[in-house]
Amino acid sequence: MMKPQRIQGEFQIQLEEAAHIIWKAIKPEIENSPSTRSKMKIKLEDDTIILKIESKDSTAFRAAMNSTLRWIKLAYDIIKLEKGDNLWNSQKTSNTN
Amino acid sequence: MMKPQRIQGEFQIQLEEAAHIIWKAIKPEIENSPSTRSKMKIKLEDDTIILKIESKDSTAFRAAMNSTLRWIKLAYDIIKLEKGDNLWNSQKTSNTN
Repeated sequence: MMKPQRIQGEFQIQLEEAAHIIWKAIKPEIENSPSTRSKMKIKLEDDTIILKIESKDSTAFRAAMNSTLRWIKLAYDIIKLEKGDNLWNSQKTSNTN
Repeated sequence: MMKPQRIQGEFQIQLEEAAHIIWKAIKPEIENSPSTRSKMKIKLEDDTIILKIESKDSTAFRAAMNSTLRWIKLAYDIIKLEKGDNLWNSQKTSNTN
C-alpha cells in the first residue's frame, strides 16, 4: 500500500522596504497556526521573507501556502495603498470606465 | 513607488514508486505552460519530484502552484485507485453511509 506522501517547500518573497513590516505582522499568525497537518516557519533576510512549509498531504500544503500568500499580499497592498501606489498586480484600469 | 515583487519557491514532493510515472506524465504540461507570468521547472530525484516556480506576482505564483499540485495529486490518486488503495488523503469514510 502506498504511504501518504510528504510535501515541503521553501519560498522567497522579495518585498523591498515593506518586508520588515509584513514579516512582523504575519509572524504570530504563522507561528501559532492551529493546523496539525502543516508546519510553517518564517524568516526575514534583508528585503526578502523566507517561508518554509512542510505538510503531510497536498491539500494541507496548498491550504497553508494559499492562506499565507494571501496574508502577505493583503499586507503588501495595505502598505501600497497607504503610500498612494497601485496595488501589487492590479491590471491597468483605463480611466474611461 | 514600490516595484511589483518577485516570488520563487522550490518544493519537494515525496511520491515513492509513483514518482517516475507522475513526473513523466506532467513534465510536458510544466515545460509547455503558456503562462508568461510564471516560469516552472521540474526534476525527478529518486522518489521525489522537485518543482521550481518563479513568478512576477503572488497571484501568478499561486495559480501555477495550485494547478501543478492538483495534477500531481490527480495522477497520484489514479495510480492508487489502479492499485486498489485508498486515495491520498481521503477521510476514513464509515461503511454505514
